Amino acid sequence: MSHGEKEFIAALEGCGALRFGDFTLASGAKSNYYIDIKRASTDPRVLELMAGGMAALMEREGLRPDRIAGVVLGSVPLATALSLRTGIPFLMVRKESKDHGTRSLIEGTFSRGEDVLVVEDVVTSAGSLVDAVGRLRDAGLDVSTAISAIDREAGGSERLAADGVKLHSLLRASSIPGVGK
Amino acid sequence: MSHGEKEFIAALEGCGALRFGDFTLASGAKSNYYIDIKRASTDPRVLELMAGGMAALMEREGLRPDRIAGVVLGSVPLATALSLRTGIPFLMVRKESKDHGTRSLIEGTFSRGEDVLVVEDVVTSAGSLVDAVGRLRDAGLDVSTAISAIDREAGGSERLAADGVKLHSLLRASSIPGVGK
Repeated sequence: MSHGEKEFIAALEGCGALRFGDFTLASGAKSNYYIDIKRASTDPRVLELMAGGMAALMEREGLRPDRIAGVVLGSVPLATALSLRTGIPFLMVRKESKDHGTRSLIEGTFSRGEDVLVVEDVVTSAGSLVDAVGRLRDAGLDVSTAISAIDREAGGSERLAADGVKLHSLLRASSIPGVGK
Repeated sequence: MSHGEKEFIAALEGCGALRFGDFTLASGAKSNYYIDIKRASTDPRVLELMAGGMAALMEREGLRPDRIAGVVLGSVPLATALSLRTGIPFLMVRKESKDHGTRSLIEGTFSRGEDVLVVEDVVTSAGSLVDAVGRLRDAGLDVSTAISAIDREAGGSERLAADGVKLHSLLRASSIPGVGK
């Protein structure tokens, strides 16, 4: 485990975002840990840590997108923090909604053909991320890379790869001591 | 006009968020200017400028809230940026929604009795801000102060005052050269 991963795990436990016990997820699956990521992304110290980790990852991987995008609502703080750190403007991608038919699904300015990096707080099966990528592509934007703070390793990375998107993450669930044992 | 106001107006014009012409607002009223604030709040330089102005205003007014709150979706980037700058954690206040009856209206952690500063991008008649204040108070939080990046001076300040909330702003519409003439 890297120093960055250790520091991130300690920060998640410190703010109460990572808890151990017997949990039943929304999907019905059982889990021996639970991540309340909004506790992390609304805590400025932990948010700064995540944005710093993502900026370092972009540097390492040579990622220089035209725009950053975050999925509404959970990933908007991350997209904002990474935008402030890198100076790259960001977009907010809404989920489909029945009662707001005429509202724009992508907030923020962009031009067709621009390269967009999508950020996400937690990826499980990547359903909402795949939907967001589809909406960005429908608007003429290029998406080939995503960064997630946490990858729960439940098929999300493979599903995104099949869709032509490489997923990076700051922390994989299997790296957290005590998970799944 | 102060140096800060001048710099803010120049930034708004620079990113295309402030435009002059003949506009009809959502309310039906006519206006000779239009503010597309999402252009400003998704541009990291302008967002940083707004958060810096708000942090300075908090310092000047001696405001030290336990939490910052932003109304979903438009004010979440501002709440995030101000939280990162001040180290104060933030909340995201959702609007009522028909299709998500069981979803939490306030995202983020808090305790009853905490003092919350609400931030907003643009205040016109303050309808969404008054609603958000009501939801925060229903959850046991104290709200007595709000900061808006722009006050369109269309009754919002008075409406908030009647509700026990003092509104500060970085820029009043009447301070923008060429507005309303």
